Amino acid sequence: MSGAAAAVGTLLVHSPHRKGIVTSLAQLLSDHDVTVVDSSHYSDASSQMFFQRVQFDASISAVQRDALEVSLGAMTARDGMVWRIAYPDRAKRIAILASKQEHCLYDLLIRHRAGELACTIALVISNHPEAGPIAKHFGVPFHHLPITAETKQRQESRAVELVDGAGVDLIVLARYMQLLTPGFVQKYPGRIINIHHSFLPAFVGGNAYRQAHEKGVKMIGATSHYVTDDLDQGPIIEQATVRCTHRDSVEVLTRKGRELEKQVLATAVRWHLEDRVMVAGGKTVVFD
Amino acid sequence: MSGAAAAVGTLLVHSPHRKGIVTSLAQLLSDHDVTVVDSSHYSDASSQMFFQRVQFDASISAVQRDALEVSLGAMTARDGMVWRIAYPDRAKRIAILASKQEHCLYDLLIRHRAGELACTIALVISNHPEAGPIAKHFGVPFHHLPITAETKQRQESRAVELVDGAGVDLIVLARYMQLLTPGFVQKYPGRIINIHHSFLPAFVGGNAYRQAHEKGVKMIGATSHYVTDDLDQGPIIEQATVRCTHRDSVEVLTRKGRELEKQVLATAVRWHLEDRVMVAGGKTVVFD
Amino acid sequence: MSGAAAAVGTLLVHSPHRKGIVTSLAQLLSDHDVTVVDSSHYSDASSQMFFQRVQFDASISAVQRDALEVSLGAMTARDGMVWRIAYPDRAKRIAILASKQEHCLYDLLIRHRAGELACTIALVISNHPEAGPIAKHFGVPFHHLPITAETKQRQESRAVELVDGAGVDLIVLARYMQLLTPGFVQKYPGRIINIHHSFLPAFVGGNAYRQAHEKGVKMIGATSHYVTDDLDQGPIIEQATVRCTHRDSVEVLTRKGRELEKQVLATAVRWHLEDRVMVAGGKTVVFD
Amino acid sequence: MSGAAAAVGTLLVHSPHRKGIVTSLAQLLSDHDVTVVDSSHYSDASSQMFFQRVQFDASISAVQRDALEVSLGAMTARDGMVWRIAYPDRAKRIAILASKQEHCLYDLLIRHRAGELACTIALVISNHPEAGPIAKHFGVPFHHLPITAETKQRQESRAVELVDGAGVDLIVLARYMQLLTPGFVQKYPGRIINIHHSFLPAFVGGNAYRQAHEKGVKMIGATSHYVTDDLDQGPIIEQATVRCTHRDSVEVLTRKGRELEKQVLATAVRWHLEDRVMVAGGKTVVFD
Repeated sequence: MSGAAAAVGTLLVHSPHRKGIVTSLAQLLSDHDVTVVDSSHYSDASSQMFFQRVQFDASISAVQRDALEVSLGAMTARDGMVWRIAYPDRAKRIAILASKQEHCLYDLLIRHRAGELACTIALVISNHPEAGPIAKHFGVPFHHLPITAETKQRQESRAVELVDGAGVDLIVLARYMQLLTPGFVQKYPGRIINIHHSFLPAFVGGNAYRQAHEKGVKMIGATSHYVTDDLDQGPIIEQATVRCTHRDSVEVLTRKGRELEKQVLATAVRWHLEDRVMVAGGKTVVFD
Repeated sequence: MSGAAAAVGTLLVHSPHRKGIVTSLAQLLSDHDVTVVDSSHYSDASSQMFFQRVQFDASISAVQRDALEVSLGAMTARDGMVWRIAYPDRAKRIAILASKQEHCLYDLLIRHRAGELACTIALVISNHPEAGPIAKHFGVPFHHLPITAETKQRQESRAVELVDGAGVDLIVLARYMQLLTPGFVQKYPGRIINIHHSFLPAFVGGNAYRQAHEKGVKMIGATSHYVTDDLDQGPIIEQATVRCTHRDSVEVLTRKGRELEKQVLATAVRWHLEDRVMVAGGKTVVFD
Repeated sequence: MSGAAAAVGTLLVHSPHRKGIVTSLAQLLSDHDVTVVDSSHYSDASSQMFFQRVQFDASISAVQRDALEVSLGAMTARDGMVWRIAYPDRAKRIAILASKQEHCLYDLLIRHRAGELACTIALVISNHPEAGPIAKHFGVPFHHLPITAETKQRQESRAVELVDGAGVDLIVLARYMQLLTPGFVQKYPGRIINIHHSFLPAFVGGNAYRQAHEKGVKMIGATSHYVTDDLDQGPIIEQATVRCTHRDSVEVLTRKGRELEKQVLATAVRWHLEDRVMVAGGKTVVFD
Repeated sequence: MSGAAAAVGTLLVHSPHRKGIVTSLAQLLSDHDVTVVDSSHYSDASSQMFFQRVQFDASISAVQRDALEVSLGAMTARDGMVWRIAYPDRAKRIAILASKQEHCLYDLLIRHRAGELACTIALVISNHPEAGPIAKHFGVPFHHLPITAETKQRQESRAVELVDGAGVDLIVLARYMQLLTPGFVQKYPGRIINIHHSFLPAFVGGNAYRQAHEKGVKMIGATSHYVTDDLDQGPIIEQATVRCTHRDSVEVLTRKGRELEKQVLATAVRWHLEDRVMVAGGKTVVFD
């Protein structure tokens, strides 16, 4: 029930569309005595794909959970369906990677403390020491991994160890100014969220506010996306924009942009944590 | 399927919440061979009410339609459910009531012509003659009903005759500057949409832009709502706001506000026509 | 005085920045008994350019006007200043070029009728006949210039004749779906305003809503700009964006985008007509 | 020069409007060898008031400063002008008053640390101890003044002592949940900024998000204003709104609202610190 604190599980499903799929999934859940509390679906006309998000009363036994997963597995085999289930009794674990800019790091830590982000922040990693006292203030383990051209590969390996050792579900790049290697990215498909400081696909790459200033745009933006091997090209989760004028220097654009970056990243992370996002065909479906 | 032109019917339902209601409604539709193409529901925690909008393949026979309605009727008797069904083979009919300001009238007529509003505009009524050539340009019947203190009651009766004679489903007050009598309002419950030129509940009544100017607000707004006997207090369907500054005179606020009024009214009308709006407890649920 | 109907002239100035320029311009105006009613300036730090917009009491004699222009001319010769003056007693004249899509055409004509655009709409030209009755409804001369590959050059010459014959100051491309030749564009530098259906520099060229849909962006935009020889690269005057979701088909994006296009184009045209826009370095300075 | 770090002073002026006031002020500054780097003015048509903000090269001697103030004083005596000057060599000092909610407190401290707020945060006062470690993390003196019905008067006196002892220019109520007494308010006219969690004048008083939820509005807002004796009625400095839907519980509205509160308060504080705000007739003029 919206806004209530009932313990609900979430089932996310996508599959090629076929007639009757809504009914048969409803039937399957009913057969397993699963009480649906909320449900949305979406049929994509151009790709002929079907997406559904079901929230259900999670107070079912471990035996029921297993049986449900077996039935879903059978449906997968038959219909080419992809699904995942999240139960509220296991909080997702996230790692935040940060650099020198603090605003997104602070923002995520404060929101978590205010109860906005349903997760455990397992650790903060930064290539700069300044993030240490911040993590400490919020009681989050911190690891300083300084990076030079020579140490980059080694430090990334160390980051993988830390992330995997902490059982992390999601990696959040909070204005992390280092390019990740393809090896790192491919290890966590759909599990790394980045914030880019422009309204993508405009102004790919670095210095996006400078690019925007030089172009003379009248709005700037920010984009959160899953990280893929193509720089700034991964599936977009959320975007926002704000007006600017000729009076805004690059510094002012940067200040205005920080607002967008914080909000857009936090929204994307929250949606991911609440199992609202599915990826298909290089794009996201967001059940907001 | 979203964005496709398939002939879909829409079922709107609300009822006191009870466990299993999603499943039993899905079952009922399945029993009648109704293919669901899209469905959303919403459970309101504070009022314990349940709302659902189902879009279904409307290519079912008249016999099936009748049987479906019988079953829904039984569910109503049993569960206190309220429902209505709309089929695409009957376009809704609307009447537009206008006064001297033309912007909302033009806006609705142009959107209708562009295919944005799935309805028939049955007639335009105005207490001023200026709307006549506008209605004529768009090929819509026009009725001029000038109003004075003495003729008000009579003209309203005439408006009822015209509206009822034209089989109108929805009355749109497009900046109609006349207060409607309780008798008129009560005749069309949930079937009259008004646009108010403020962000309600701020600035009820007339001269809202002047009130806003005097207050020195930094944003102005517009609100579309169903008309009830309480002036400017009916269930809100849609609202929007826009920035303003100390530099904006009442005239500039009025110009900026016209944009909001057009959009907010058109959105509310479109949502109503697409059977996205339900009213309960003095508020709306909008499946957008 | 803001919001008042006083007859004010507008002086626009830009020049390389130098110390004391604000004071010396104030002195010059004072020397000519010109009463300033409003004034804004802007110094661009990166280009070291200075911009000023002065509104002044236009009730000065023709002799005073001439003397003022002589003095400004002297300042130009000395300081490399560029200036232009507009007096309220001569309304600017605009030509609207349209194609099959009607929304921007209607929008401009309605705003003009409502007094939002201080200009004379001298003529409407379209390569499709549908715009004819629309122009007629608003009492504006219409010219149908159908275009084929063979006739393009000839029709453009005809358009030039019509535009020049009507003494047009500004050409507005209201979703005009024809590429203009460099010859045409160069004839009217800073005097052609276009509306592009994306948030430039993203999605240059045709089918911008389809491009946006394929990319999976979460906002769409519109951009008005002065036309230059580089397609969709001219100085940006105004931009706006609106949220979209995965549910929005290309058709829905197109509908949402029409709102933006109308507003963004109308705002750009209004600012131009009110002498609020200066161009320097491929960008605009807008005194709004 | 916009965006540049030049040391500029700011002169704010308002007075009854009279012909030639722009010129005579320009002359006065010129006579004192004050180099204007930016200037805006505004004439209010309804109140016949004139407002001007002048930014000038602050590298003038103490003697020049004194002479300038003498001349401005003479103009005040003659023309009923009100003025104030701020020089960059003295940072304004602010006190933050907070209660249990931390988001605005954190937000202001982080922005200050990032260089967005040109001031010294002299102290944080709270009636709850939780703010202590936060202030400490940012190196700001903290005072815990718990309040009960009996101690309220005494604690407020203590707050006055602290504020005055610290030479504070501006008091910021960062979601401070205590009503201030008239005595306190009158001691700091135009020097206390509050953030109210609604789009005023809608939803005055407490529990504004609950009020909004019950009304069923489709947008919520936040308002920053100078504090006066009339609860939530002081001159509005800034407002913002965000969309909400029927799905948003009071808790979700509260979460969405926190974003607005942070931004709106920070913007109002920044504008005040940058000497962009003047108050006249119960409203603000903001040179943004």
